[in-house]
Amino acid sequence: MCSLIIRKKRGGALSRDEIRWMIQGYTSGEIPDYQMSAMMMAVCFTGMSGEETKELTLAMAESGDVLDLSSIRGIKVDKHSTGGVGDKTTLVLAPLAASLGVPVAKMSGRGLGHTGGTIDKLESFSGFRTDLSPEEFVRHVNRYHIAVAGQTADLAPADKKLYALRDVTGTVDQMSLIASSIMSKKLASGADAIVLDVKTGDGAFMKRLEDARALAAEMVNIGKMAGKDVTAVISDMDQPLGCAVGNALEVKEAIDTLRGCGPEDLRELVLVLGSLMTVKAGCAGDVREARGMLEASLGDGRAFETFCRFIRAQGGDVSQAEHPEKLPAAPFQMEVPARENGYVGDIRTEEVGGVCLMLGGGRVTKESRIDLSAGIVLKRKKGDAVRKGEPLAVLHASDRAQMEAAAERLSRAFLITGEKPEREPLIKEIIG
Amino acid sequence: MCSLIIRKKRGGALSRDEIRWMIQGYTSGEIPDYQMSAMMMAVCFTGMSGEETKELTLAMAESGDVLDLSSIRGIKVDKHSTGGVGDKTTLVLAPLAASLGVPVAKMSGRGLGHTGGTIDKLESFSGFRTDLSPEEFVRHVNRYHIAVAGQTADLAPADKKLYALRDVTGTVDQMSLIASSIMSKKLASGADAIVLDVKTGDGAFMKRLEDARALAAEMVNIGKMAGKDVTAVISDMDQPLGCAVGNALEVKEAIDTLRGCGPEDLRELVLVLGSLMTVKAGCAGDVREARGMLEASLGDGRAFETFCRFIRAQGGDVSQAEHPEKLPAAPFQMEVPARENGYVGDIRTEEVGGVCLMLGGGRVTKESRIDLSAGIVLKRKKGDAVRKGEPLAVLHASDRAQMEAAAERLSRAFLITGEKPEREPLIKEIIG
Repeated sequence: MCSLIIRKKRGGALSRDEIRWMIQGYTSGEIPDYQMSAMMMAVCFTGMSGEETKELTLAMAESGDVLDLSSIRGIKVDKHSTGGVGDKTTLVLAPLAASLGVPVAKMSGRGLGHTGGTIDKLESFSGFRTDLSPEEFVRHVNRYHIAVAGQTADLAPADKKLYALRDVTGTVDQMSLIASSIMSKKLASGADAIVLDVKTGDGAFMKRLEDARALAAEMVNIGKMAGKDVTAVISDMDQPLGCAVGNALEVKEAIDTLRGCGPEDLRELVLVLGSLMTVKAGCAGDVREARGMLEASLGDGRAFETFCRFIRAQGGDVSQAEHPEKLPAAPFQMEVPARENGYVGDIRTEEVGGVCLMLGGGRVTKESRIDLSAGIVLKRKKGDAVRKGEPLAVLHASDRAQMEAAAERLSRAFLITGEKPEREPLIKEIIG
Repeated sequence: MCSLIIRKKRGGALSRDEIRWMIQGYTSGEIPDYQMSAMMMAVCFTGMSGEETKELTLAMAESGDVLDLSSIRGIKVDKHSTGGVGDKTTLVLAPLAASLGVPVAKMSGRGLGHTGGTIDKLESFSGFRTDLSPEEFVRHVNRYHIAVAGQTADLAPADKKLYALRDVTGTVDQMSLIASSIMSKKLASGADAIVLDVKTGDGAFMKRLEDARALAAEMVNIGKMAGKDVTAVISDMDQPLGCAVGNALEVKEAIDTLRGCGPEDLRELVLVLGSLMTVKAGCAGDVREARGMLEASLGDGRAFETFCRFIRAQGGDVSQAEHPEKLPAAPFQMEVPARENGYVGDIRTEEVGGVCLMLGGGRVTKESRIDLSAGIVLKRKKGDAVRKGEPLAVLHASDRAQMEAAAERLSRAFLITGEKPEREPLIKEIIG
């Protein structure tokens, strides 16, 4: 291992067999953390080739269970987002795609950070269960075209161990390592095709467009090398997606969108990602046709019906979908008013996420309990005019004192300018 | 710690307090190996400033016992060599300097590699003991001007731990880390002044002159910043020093040199280093005067007398010094003949060390037993003429089969050329 570290330090390449030996040895505990962290730091400086990145990804993907989805009919398409503030895309996209017959077999996780993950959000429905057995999972997808389960299988344990090490050794921000971490889990999840939503901007992990582009290209490249049909969409995260930030609030907004309403940006992103998924699944000839089909499904109620069937199938109280006011609601609400006249020039998006976390809407540690009802609903987004005293946002909270501190902090996250700012495009690029 | 790693990775500097906190935490086990190895790898890429290197050195020096030599009269001068093949300098230099009244209080170690260390070599004398109590150590230096003890005190444990980690994580070859590792032990050893012998060439750790120069400059700089009088001599290690390689064989050569004979290069190096030590100790006005005093001591028997007193004082059988044929001797000897006429153009010095190790003269692991009698005596050095069949060297061994394999290997370590090569200077540079 020491000689491999020295080779990588000098900018040399590791072979397929060396990478597999290293990942197996690390997973089994034969290679100690202190050698792996030195290797990771060397990679941060000298990088990895496309070939090495692919081999690392495959070695990690095969370090644990690899799901066999062959008993699900059709071309299975997975979707992954690199994460952002107010990102409830999966809640809309999964039932929408399923409504066209796209088989959506989704393993999802809980969130750590500003809000919960998809699993947490779905638990806003009383009784909703995500601990599906492998048989149930397959049966649901074949019957309803959709199932969302918590990650019960031992997927890519090497990635889990390596990510935890990178997290505490300052070796997270290397493009090939990030790409292989994400893709190893996707490859282990067994889908035939993958649509990636790579966020960029203040509320994303990749703050700069060029970094998002590099990450997207790495992931598409890994996918292609591994024989998967992969496309990445680079989308804006310089303001929250939609208006709701917080678990039950995001579910409500997702329901609105599934009913053909909802915020424009969320709807647009879902249509772009959904078109790609639909085409990859062979349910439409091209993205234009797919988009028309998706818009029709949103318009005529099929998308929402699929959602309701899905909630019911997994034990959730579907009356909460039909009457969203029955979803968890916070006892206190409070407007955050604008302090001057003007236009919303900038929203410090990461800070909005921080405010949601502060209200109890996210997890500080893996053990934290989430307040599903807490969060923020934006009343103004970038480019909107506002007059002094008019609301920029409404806070939803269970603790009044905390809410007041949060209001102060959220107020400072909005930058009001005299001139109307130009609108940034939501979709920056599509790669692959 | 993670934020310090990230700062260093980005090329930032660590403060005095941060370095002390890190070294204390690492020594106590609060900072895990995997974070420290990532930090060390980051340092390999972004380096450390002179100020950081000094602080790291001091923090490591102060991580354990710091010897208090104040009860020894005079200015205590220590000497350190970065190590090479046939390096028996200390065996000559320490008693020679002591013969002029320079107080030589030397902590020394056992060797790992091609031969033993000074302690191992001195154990060629029956009964010689190095486990002096602190009181004995001080009393001996005050009485005989010389004592050599094994490292009993807990000197620079942080360095010990960090070096062991660097050794297995590919982070050994960084100049500031090498310099701080050496200097931390020297500073903890309590001397007022230090003369460093930095070897360069095939048989040295620093193969290239520019690396040796950089290491020497770093160490002198650290020493000055720590308030010590430090000078570094860069000396040639492109062939073994002197002719003998192996423990008892080196002791014999050292005795020859103390008696005013011995190989020219060893004698010259000892005079250069000794002059610096003598001046630093205030026993001579300048190096020219010091050199004259040292030459006189070698010529009139005082150096050898001091050596004999020293061996006797530490329990050794002094008759072995007076009659070196009584030192451990190998049962088998074998000449290695030249395979053609010409001049010795090059000696692969590291390989000569490897042959000595193969004969049993060094340690492969810390637990290995050394064969004190085994080794090599060179009969030709660089630039010497040789005729086919004439001996290049003589092997001394306890195992005939091993000796024959060693002869074959040693023969290939000599490069014979048609033209007489130019002589390299022994002393390359003096820094500080």
